[in-house]
Amino acid sequence: STSSNLITATLFPGDGIGPEIAESVKQVFNAAEVPIEWEEHFVGTEVDPRTQSFLTWESLESVRRNKVGLKGPMATPIGKGHRSLNLTLRKELNLYANVRPCYSLPGYKTRYDDVNLVTIRENTEGEYSGLEHQVVRGVVESLKIITRQASLRVAEYAFYYAKTHGRDRVSAVHKANIMQKTDGLFLKCCREVAEKYPEIKYEEVVIDNCCMMLVKNPTLFDVLVMPNLYGDIISDLCAGLIGGLGLTPSLNIGEGGIALAEAVHGSAPDIAGKNLANPTALLLSAVSMLHHLDLNEQADKIQDAILKTIAEGKYRTGDLGGTSTTTEFTKAIIDHL
Amino acid sequence: STSSNLITATLFPGDGIGPEIAESVKQVFNAAEVPIEWEEHFVGTEVDPRTQSFLTWESLESVRRNKVGLKGPMATPIGKGHRSLNLTLRKELNLYANVRPCYSLPGYKTRYDDVNLVTIRENTEGEYSGLEHQVVRGVVESLKIITRQASLRVAEYAFYYAKTHGRDRVSAVHKANIMQKTDGLFLKCCREVAEKYPEIKYEEVVIDNCCMMLVKNPTLFDVLVMPNLYGDIISDLCAGLIGGLGLTPSLNIGEGGIALAEAVHGSAPDIAGKNLANPTALLLSAVSMLHHLDLNEQADKIQDAILKTIAEGKYRTGDLGGTSTTTEFTKAIIDHL
Ligand SMILES: CC(C)[C@H](C(=O)O)[C@@H](O)C(=O)O
Ligand SMILES: CC(C)[C@H](C(=O)O)[C@@H](O)C(=O)O
Repeated sequence: STSSNLITATLFPGDGIGPEIAESVKQVFNAAEVPIEWEEHFVGTEVDPRTQSFLTWESLESVRRNKVGLKGPMATPIGKGHRSLNLTLRKELNLYANVRPCYSLPGYKTRYDDVNLVTIRENTEGEYSGLEHQVVRGVVESLKIITRQASLRVAEYAFYYAKTHGRDRVSAVHKANIMQKTDGLFLKCCREVAEKYPEIKYEEVVIDNCCMMLVKNPTLFDVLVMPNLYGDIISDLCAGLIGGLGLTPSLNIGEGGIALAEAVHGSAPDIAGKNLANPTALLLSAVSMLHHLDLNEQADKIQDAILKTIAEGKYRTGDLGGTSTTTEFTKAIIDHL
Repeated sequence: STSSNLITATLFPGDGIGPEIAESVKQVFNAAEVPIEWEEHFVGTEVDPRTQSFLTWESLESVRRNKVGLKGPMATPIGKGHRSLNLTLRKELNLYANVRPCYSLPGYKTRYDDVNLVTIRENTEGEYSGLEHQVVRGVVESLKIITRQASLRVAEYAFYYAKTHGRDRVSAVHKANIMQKTDGLFLKCCREVAEKYPEIKYEEVVIDNCCMMLVKNPTLFDVLVMPNLYGDIISDLCAGLIGGLGLTPSLNIGEGGIALAEAVHGSAPDIAGKNLANPTALLLSAVSMLHHLDLNEQADKIQDAILKTIAEGKYRTGDLGGTSTTTEFTKAIIDHL
């Protein structure tokens, strides 16, 4: 049913537990009367029997047209020789910034109760260039590429994000004491952008020291911006502080205003189809997508219901120490709306 | 005074607080009647006024001849154009494995009370190749180099270490899902060595996931082995779990049986010369050196005294929340011998 009031968003349920947790999002969105209609496409690690494809041109065009989408987990096989679908989407859609807010969930106890930070990861280059070769037998090399254009772009986004989200500090994470040229260029770009935001405090922190500080006292940080691999590492470390990737949202920002929200956890093939998966990360990612669309009322309502359900503790999935099914947990959220 | 019973070890006190904490080690070693005589050499970030040198050939020869040494902190200026002294020593002495045991200190409370693991870092190549250049304006690249020789060498050391230290698991940390050739070769070498140690369990863990697991539950790990940059990051993260770099020992293993113990924390110029520095990391590194020399009795005695002093809590330096001076803390350790 198409209606002029509805926003069309692309949905890639993904592999493994993807379809179940995507179903949870659809139900919660329906119950909250979110004015979104989904354009669902199959993208996955096993080829779609109908299209004989992992990823069709139509799927990519759907995101390009709608400019907004939600994706479930997709497996990245180690050493299978074909590029990860996650990376293919980043490249094809030019998803240049990966934004992961990370905050302690009320009532869900970990060793840390005061985490509230956001990692912003350059998502297109660095150690992910894909440029590798064997020099001679037994000697291989990988190229890390840092460009002024991509570094400025992600730095701009980080400061813009800080400013529009009431955050007052941006820390650039680097290893410029060793990689003076690559990480040095990244820092130079961050400094240039920082000058345009005198109201935002800017600092630089070496990655090893940053990890030590994060595990000692995560409140030292607010917004962190960094090259691709450091972002991969630090965002997972931060997720660990608050309970894991099953609880953290992620939003990818692309050129031309594209936003693709995604659950960054694995596809958990062992529990797929068993109604045991935790939909929290995908739900919170969907909430980020709503915020991005300025549907703040619905976003806040849904986020509150998710956090209340987790805080209450009566309905929790197995990964959080509970015994609820995906559908029971989803129903509890809907009851809290 | 030279005596045939004495082992000669090189001592580089280093920069900043280095001389004070080295003095602490000398006093504790004297009190414990450790059969070592020190051959002290100046190596530091400011040139020695006597030699006009940062690092003399004689200093390097001293370690090469004695095959064992202890070094204090040396500053690595960011972007000053000259190579870090730490890196120069690694390169000149071919210090191929950096070994950092990391365990919760009894009585010193952090968020974690059950850490007991060892990180073993490849210390000569990877992202530390120093090979970087500008391709065109605004596009720079760094080369990560992985060789079969260095990977086998550090993997051999890790399994040998596990076996000789009663540890039963080795985890190789990597990002071979992205860097299939470089990290792929590293893993291949680890697998080859693992086959020779059927009694040691071998597993592989992706670096981002490893960091998440470490902050959630560090008891999942025993011995971790990894390429240079991952080792840099993970060893600092682990230090953070138990209280920071001021508390963790480090030992570098080089070709030809060289062992250079070192405090890996900074040189803390702000408190240098004020009798405020914490000598624990250098003392525990000196203990690793004694274990390496099979002076286990003295090593254990000194380690016990250090741990008891910290556990007791009466004498602690400022970084550990106490008010003791370096000399008071050192004296307390000596009293516990
Ligand atoms: C699966 C893998 C290719 C991916 C990455 O390394 O970026 C993942 O860890 C992530 O963070 O999205
Ligand atoms: C100071 C720096 C060059 C060094 C490194 O990156 O190896 C330090 O972090 C370390 O771990 O010894």
